[in-house]
Amino acid sequence: MNRYVALEGIDGAGKTSVSAALALLLEAAGHEVVRVREPGGTAVGEGLRQILLDGPPVTPWAEALMFAAARAQLVTEVIRPALGRGAWVLSDRSVYSSLAYQGAGRGLGMDRVRRINQPGLRGVWPDLVVLLTVSPQEGLARQARPDRIGAQGAPFLGAVAEGFSRLATEEPGRFVVIDAGRPVEQVVARAWDALGVGG
Amino acid sequence: MNRYVALEGIDGAGKTSVSAALALLLEAAGHEVVRVREPGGTAVGEGLRQILLDGPPVTPWAEALMFAAARAQLVTEVIRPALGRGAWVLSDRSVYSSLAYQGAGRGLGMDRVRRINQPGLRGVWPDLVVLLTVSPQEGLARQARPDRIGAQGAPFLGAVAEGFSRLATEEPGRFVVIDAGRPVEQVVARAWDALGVGG
Repeated sequence: MNRYVALEGIDGAGKTSVSAALALLLEAAGHEVVRVREPGGTAVGEGLRQILLDGPPVTPWAEALMFAAARAQLVTEVIRPALGRGAWVLSDRSVYSSLAYQGAGRGLGMDRVRRINQPGLRGVWPDLVVLLTVSPQEGLARQARPDRIGAQGAPFLGAVAEGFSRLATEEPGRFVVIDAGRPVEQVVARAWDALGVGG
Repeated sequence: MNRYVALEGIDGAGKTSVSAALALLLEAAGHEVVRVREPGGTAVGEGLRQILLDGPPVTPWAEALMFAAARAQLVTEVIRPALGRGAWVLSDRSVYSSLAYQGAGRGLGMDRVRRINQPGLRGVWPDLVVLLTVSPQEGLARQARPDRIGAQGAPFLGAVAEGFSRLATEEPGRFVVIDAGRPVEQVVARAWDALGVGG
């Protein structure tokens, strides 16, 4: 069972809509669903989210460490207990966003970013990553009001998208890659198949 | 020259008073002094400080990562530029507080906490650590209003103090250990000697 599912992709790929649709389908199939978003999902994480997305300029390493902090809090406070009682967890972003955004996008290196995240996750990594792909130009066009990180422009988002692709290639068992340019009902249907709920 | 000087020790050891006295002496000797405190010293760091010291409960790894984030920001934004123009930096706490508080006090392991701090520091470690030692009981008695971390009680502060001692033993060239129970003018005189300013 792939119960900890992360929706990933650059800004504007449609993660939130797909996550909402999957939650409805899971609940209709009788499952408890916990939806979370990164950074956030806890009091500490929402405080960090505010500094990260709307606050003063943050250096690349401080940014990577703050995302890792919000994630460590979320795993301990929400995700691990939810999985423990048998719920599904649908997460808008995960540690893989840090690898792609800070590791590849900011150039800190995906391995080094992985290492600062590892201890706080205490072994809780997404079972399944649904990677929604979209071109940086289309992703940007789909955003109403980009946040500080999403507003970095197409070359940055291109490097992030390439980071995501490399991760999907390195961990084919964990990733399902879906072209988010397809009609949304097809995107949801493919993601739903990947969950392996059956029925 | 030991121009990046960290004042260390458990809460109530008298770091702030000694740092203020050293700053006066350095300025009287014609040096530029930049005083900083951790966590804090930048807009991002002060935001993190508020969450860390007065906010909702934070898990140990999230705490360690937030301190590391505030520090990465401080090094890039303030400490490195100050050292670059020849100023002295007097810091109330440093990466060694994380090793002692989160590594030893919280039990995360000093080496693991060192590893999450390493990349963000980009080689900027204190040249000199002035470790002020005081018993946990006396440290607690000296605090007007302990913050969330300082309020953990004597056993926690005992583990932190032991962590500091181990670090001083491991890095004798970097540490000067001063009994903070001595009269304050003697404490300041010994710390001043350690700075090696002469004159």
